[in-house]
Amino acid sequence: MNIREEAAKMKLVAPELAASSIETRNHALELIAQALEAQKAEVFAANAMDLKAAEENQIAPAIIKRLKYDETKMRDSIAGLRQLQGLADPLGKVMLSRELDEELLLSRISVPIGVIGVIFEARPDAMVQVASLCLKSGNCAILKGGKETTHTNRVLFEIIKQSAIKAGLPESCLLQAELHNEIDELLACDQDVDLLIPRGSNQFVRYIMEHTKIPVMGHSSGICHIYVDRAVDQEQAIPIIVDAKIQYPAACNAVETILVNRAIAEEFLPKMAKALDAVKVTLRGTKEVKEIIEGATGISVDCMAEEDFATEYNDLVISIKLVDDVAAAVKHINYFGSHHTDCVLTTDDACAAYFAQTVDSAGVYRNCSTRFADGFRYGFGAEVGISTGKLHARGPVGLEGLVTYKYLLTGKGQIVGDYASGKKQFHHKDLQI
Amino acid sequence: MNIREEAAKMKLVAPELAASSIETRNHALELIAQALEAQKAEVFAANAMDLKAAEENQIAPAIIKRLKYDETKMRDSIAGLRQLQGLADPLGKVMLSRELDEELLLSRISVPIGVIGVIFEARPDAMVQVASLCLKSGNCAILKGGKETTHTNRVLFEIIKQSAIKAGLPESCLLQAELHNEIDELLACDQDVDLLIPRGSNQFVRYIMEHTKIPVMGHSSGICHIYVDRAVDQEQAIPIIVDAKIQYPAACNAVETILVNRAIAEEFLPKMAKALDAVKVTLRGTKEVKEIIEGATGISVDCMAEEDFATEYNDLVISIKLVDDVAAAVKHINYFGSHHTDCVLTTDDACAAYFAQTVDSAGVYRNCSTRFADGFRYGFGAEVGISTGKLHARGPVGLEGLVTYKYLLTGKGQIVGDYASGKKQFHHKDLQI
Repeated sequence: MNIREEAAKMKLVAPELAASSIETRNHALELIAQALEAQKAEVFAANAMDLKAAEENQIAPAIIKRLKYDETKMRDSIAGLRQLQGLADPLGKVMLSRELDEELLLSRISVPIGVIGVIFEARPDAMVQVASLCLKSGNCAILKGGKETTHTNRVLFEIIKQSAIKAGLPESCLLQAELHNEIDELLACDQDVDLLIPRGSNQFVRYIMEHTKIPVMGHSSGICHIYVDRAVDQEQAIPIIVDAKIQYPAACNAVETILVNRAIAEEFLPKMAKALDAVKVTLRGTKEVKEIIEGATGISVDCMAEEDFATEYNDLVISIKLVDDVAAAVKHINYFGSHHTDCVLTTDDACAAYFAQTVDSAGVYRNCSTRFADGFRYGFGAEVGISTGKLHARGPVGLEGLVTYKYLLTGKGQIVGDYASGKKQFHHKDLQI
Repeated sequence: MNIREEAAKMKLVAPELAASSIETRNHALELIAQALEAQKAEVFAANAMDLKAAEENQIAPAIIKRLKYDETKMRDSIAGLRQLQGLADPLGKVMLSRELDEELLLSRISVPIGVIGVIFEARPDAMVQVASLCLKSGNCAILKGGKETTHTNRVLFEIIKQSAIKAGLPESCLLQAELHNEIDELLACDQDVDLLIPRGSNQFVRYIMEHTKIPVMGHSSGICHIYVDRAVDQEQAIPIIVDAKIQYPAACNAVETILVNRAIAEEFLPKMAKALDAVKVTLRGTKEVKEIIEGATGISVDCMAEEDFATEYNDLVISIKLVDDVAAAVKHINYFGSHHTDCVLTTDDACAAYFAQTVDSAGVYRNCSTRFADGFRYGFGAEVGISTGKLHARGPVGLEGLVTYKYLLTGKGQIVGDYASGKKQFHHKDLQI
């Protein structure tokens, strides 16, 4: 398969998918749900092959758990497809309606982005979720899943594609890339692919960002911070920090660095150290942090280097540093952070307002866990990823992040010369939407 | 001056500018207006130096006209500054307010993008317009104007910067780059510059897009089309085509290619050819177009090559081709066009709807000139450029295109573990904004 040729074909078909009705797109989602149910034996057989290969390749049990696609995960996929059908059509929304002059009407309406390439980790449920989000939003999609789920993905993709065609969507609206070298082919499709969404390791996402001219949406790293202010409810702070670190340490929204106001360090650090040590989190701290914690609790603290503050551990390790005030905390966060999600723990409204205003991140939190940064938790139904970029979508990206807009202008023969000469004037009257 | 160091300083100051009140930002705009008036002798003297140098360098009179900054242009700049003050604050708008659970409140608010680099053509009024749009939207800006207006820009920039400081905005919020090699330094500032907006020739914009990792907003070429349907008011069509070509041929929204429905070619082509010939537009056409026009009118038509359809003439030259129907027209436009602005001339609503739905451009028009694609004409007050990209802002980019958003989440100690375990459930209740 030649990805560039296929992408070019897809580009030609994109307007047709864009023009499809919401009923047709929802019907496709329903047919996928039904086909999953009907063909589940085939799906599970394919998944068994992937699991067998994974065991043979001595892949870690934690990873194998993610490769597994069983009754429970399929039920979740089907429930997700039904939930997505219930969400409003993201296309054709009128965002602006303005009469520029008599019978010269400007409107701005939401349209799909066009052709989207999504490269995602080895998780069969991701294939269903990503494909269905693209279909619902009227986008053609080139999908490349992790190689460890090749067999499962192949069956799932066929189910999805055949269901889309059966619903009446264009035949070339979905494409599966299976080979690793096809990723490089995809990166070269800047003529036809409008957006890339890579998911995976920092290193992988950075590779994608550096090797394509196609706009990339996503994040390479998630270096999230919690700043513990001097005015803090310490009993509330500890469980938040523990949750943010251990609830899913490999997630991008897990916390990596705790900044503690120096005024409460002597009292707070030992309490926090005990709570983190109890759940097997390794502590790394600056010299003064190490002295306070080791002196008060005997819990050992690794000496940290400056570069640790720029490291996403993805593990049960945490960096700890003291700061003089919220301003110093914000400076640290904006410098070392990845603009993902950062949190202040404080009972002081002025401190919280300053933090919210000046932290330059997609999510800025107060008194809750950073782990809430997620499309499902935000009520977006699902997400294709989390963006730390500032343009277009920021934070968890759901259907809304998969659309753009176009301006429509309808006239009765108006020409610009008449306005340039002063013969006519614009009146710019906004109409009710 | 070291652009990278200056950009890093600017990045640190960006949150301070972002936090400034709308009163302060508007006050800065007012002070700029007053200072322009007060220091006009100085501005005009600097401009005289630029004009003298331009004449010595034998720059074309049409270009020299653009370099000139006189009483009229200053009056326009001052009026623009006052109009901008009247526009609503683009920052701090609440776009979403949702209770995820009791006392766990999510909101999405508009914030500035941060640090923006704008590289613009040699036009003194552009310096005032670009700087004021960035200030109003709370963005730090690195400004690089055309070298032919160096003296004028230097004075204007000082006026703008001193006015901003006087109003209370941070000292490092604006920076002027003057040397051409500083453009390459700016392109390397992907750590600190959030967005680049290049304006100028296709070749220049393409150079920028290919030599930076910073997101670029703008357009390299403007290959705009008009499709003349078989169901058309021919009397209305001719003035639209003439206006779209000649009202300002060097503009990106001028038309380059006319696609005519074959069914009306014998009747329409000669009429159109006469009208275009009368205003000195050179015609380029396919073989059949040439035969019809030359046979009927004697007006000579240049033979065109395929690549002419991918060329932005920026001149009094136009490409003409026949197509069988609206579908063929749309295919041509999506393939050869630059996704800028394309227009259908038709009295047939079904044809217009198909065209609006399937043409993949920032502006899709019906029965009016493509020259309307402009921020001022759309009622945006002003524009920093026109974007043909699909992400973030598309079409003319005003204040709204210079902002992004952040999610704020405020809780009372909520942790994700409680939701993962099923102890608590999200209720996702949208609140009134």
